[in-house]
Amino acid sequence: MPRIDPERLLSDLRALRGIGAQGKGVVRPAFSAADMEARRWLRQRYEEAGLEATIDGVGNVLGRSRRQGKALLIGSHSDTQPTGGWLDGALGVVYGLEVARACAADSATRMLPLDTVSFQDEESRFVGCLGSRSLIGGLTLQMEEGAIDKDGVSLAGALAQAGLAGTPRIRLSRERYAGFVEAHIEQGPTLEDTGQRIGVVTGIVGLRSIRFVFRGQQNHAGTTMMKTRRDASAALYELAHRINSEFPKVAAERTVWTMGRLRVEPNATSIVPGYADLDLQFRDASEAPLDALEKVAARIVAELNARGGVRIEATPTRVPIPPTSMDAGLRRHLEASAEKHAQGKWMRLPSGAFHDAGIISASLPSAMLFIPSIGGISHDFAEDSRDEDIVLGCQVLADAAASILVAANAQ
Amino acid sequence: MPRIDPERLLSDLRALRGIGAQGKGVVRPAFSAADMEARRWLRQRYEEAGLEATIDGVGNVLGRSRRQGKALLIGSHSDTQPTGGWLDGALGVVYGLEVARACAADSATRMLPLDTVSFQDEESRFVGCLGSRSLIGGLTLQMEEGAIDKDGVSLAGALAQAGLAGTPRIRLSRERYAGFVEAHIEQGPTLEDTGQRIGVVTGIVGLRSIRFVFRGQQNHAGTTMMKTRRDASAALYELAHRINSEFPKVAAERTVWTMGRLRVEPNATSIVPGYADLDLQFRDASEAPLDALEKVAARIVAELNARGGVRIEATPTRVPIPPTSMDAGLRRHLEASAEKHAQGKWMRLPSGAFHDAGIISASLPSAMLFIPSIGGISHDFAEDSRDEDIVLGCQVLADAAASILVAANAQ
Repeated sequence: MPRIDPERLLSDLRALRGIGAQGKGVVRPAFSAADMEARRWLRQRYEEAGLEATIDGVGNVLGRSRRQGKALLIGSHSDTQPTGGWLDGALGVVYGLEVARACAADSATRMLPLDTVSFQDEESRFVGCLGSRSLIGGLTLQMEEGAIDKDGVSLAGALAQAGLAGTPRIRLSRERYAGFVEAHIEQGPTLEDTGQRIGVVTGIVGLRSIRFVFRGQQNHAGTTMMKTRRDASAALYELAHRINSEFPKVAAERTVWTMGRLRVEPNATSIVPGYADLDLQFRDASEAPLDALEKVAARIVAELNARGGVRIEATPTRVPIPPTSMDAGLRRHLEASAEKHAQGKWMRLPSGAFHDAGIISASLPSAMLFIPSIGGISHDFAEDSRDEDIVLGCQVLADAAASILVAANAQ
Repeated sequence: MPRIDPERLLSDLRALRGIGAQGKGVVRPAFSAADMEARRWLRQRYEEAGLEATIDGVGNVLGRSRRQGKALLIGSHSDTQPTGGWLDGALGVVYGLEVARACAADSATRMLPLDTVSFQDEESRFVGCLGSRSLIGGLTLQMEEGAIDKDGVSLAGALAQAGLAGTPRIRLSRERYAGFVEAHIEQGPTLEDTGQRIGVVTGIVGLRSIRFVFRGQQNHAGTTMMKTRRDASAALYELAHRINSEFPKVAAERTVWTMGRLRVEPNATSIVPGYADLDLQFRDASEAPLDALEKVAARIVAELNARGGVRIEATPTRVPIPPTSMDAGLRRHLEASAEKHAQGKWMRLPSGAFHDAGIISASLPSAMLFIPSIGGISHDFAEDSRDEDIVLGCQVLADAAASILVAANAQ
């Protein structure tokens, strides 16, 4: 079976970390100069690994094997959050590169096709999972036209700036692939808390989000009496606190919700704000709790609007993502490899975070592998994993990839 | 008595509006390019009015009369809010210019000294009433060193950028002046609602403010279970809503409070925020309700901190401004002039907004005159007043200025 090279793996991960590094973290949002530099660096690594490498019209980097047969696709994303950690996405991308190199050097797999990918904009600068959506033909014109980042930059503008306007976009061929496997840091504390070193993902939670817009009357904070105010910020605080108070009554055990992005205009100490907006995002592995939360949010909005004053509008901000299951056949390969290399130290678990595998699974059999996150921390400069866990995860993935490829081409 | 020129007054007001105009509003925050252009424009107008004009080391524009005797100082500020109206500050500044011209042309006053001023940064880009504080020697090194605007620019940097580093700062001589009069739009609806055209200000409300800082743990919005979160935004929403719910129980009739400026880090939909801060500002004409609000805020912070999780710190963000009374002698001149030009159409009222007169009153006898704001709106592009009210207010001020000057120099 293929043997990965731990030094080469860690060295490439550190090289990628250096592109957009800020302290311990990485700032490499989709289409930024650092992101495009990382993609060109990766294309070069793919070429050196013997793959035919391309950056497509939305920024996906695809490394295609020249071998015949049923192929396996391995990868993740190399864009980051606005203030991101060094492993979120990058781990799965460099695993893909290392597993391709290991399989190319192994007698059982060197004639079999293993493709690699780094998807674009998984982290939602413009459209969450933009790259994987585009690869399966799920990126609509409507999604593209409405896509504006939080600084007002349009997707079309960012594509032009990155030199991608007019570059062809790649569509994945269902016939070519036996499946897709994505490795990722867990981004939560479950593996660490239970003493496990590998997680095999059973499914990915569903996700919905709502944007609340508050329209009041901007005015002077000294001369406008309280009873005549229409203060957009006060309405925002009340709505948000009521959501946080009432959601626990209908949430399931692992339901999560977050209101981590907001805007208050003009955001000055001496001005009663006339405008505010707030994003609510909520996730669960089942649809029922999501439906229940949506109803509670709508009822609170209706109650506040019935009082008059500030006018609140609530609209979904993205196409809801339904909960998805990972492919049972691919999971068996991952489980067997995990048991071989981490006997008794692996578990099955759902993914609370969304991933490109949740998009690709609509088109190809897909599966995911997790390694532990120290302290469960991610989406933060402090995000990290132990070197021995990074190395172990890659070896588990390499063995699973080899057995998937061999099985797919023996049929 | 002096006769103002309505056409010249309105024409100069519109010329000043043109510097930094955006739609119906004006964007001319302290030390911006537009603000400095306005100050150079004003210095030129002061010179043309026969005054000795200077821009001092913090950006104050002072026009000094060359006449002997007890002087009267008239003016306001020409900086604006980040999205300001066209009359807030500008009205009182151009009134000063026009009254100086009218008095210079009148036989009773042309030999008497009338000085004019436009203070810097009344609107708190760095330090609220920076310019008037500096003129009376109340700007401390500590205030200057800690002064950073909401984009992270330091006061020292802004002074250097505006070409003011090293320029001498003017200190007002108490001996020179009989007093200071500031005219201003009301910025509230009281005059309009009661059908009055002139307000003579009895006093200025006191103001305090507190900054709350929330320190939690930044994390992933999908993988971090609700019970282990330390979400800085959730703590902010709860604190703000509880303040809005509990303050009415201890507030006086005209007490106001506002939480119009906040920051959530990193302000992204898919990240549990680890940091947030929020400003609370509260005002009243008496100290007792301000003391009571401060106690309620401290109790809520203590209760939330006792629960653990997010850590909240509360610190005063500025030296508290005590309520101040306007000078009874100067008020009598304003009242007599108001009764002459707007018989039965004027009233006495407190100012809910703070003004430079509240600073200058610590050093010189000070008074204020208000004209109506349409709809009570200010600190907004929509801020406006009727031309006939603008003209009437200036004539009332001119007559009052003349009678103050004559009385002061007859003694």
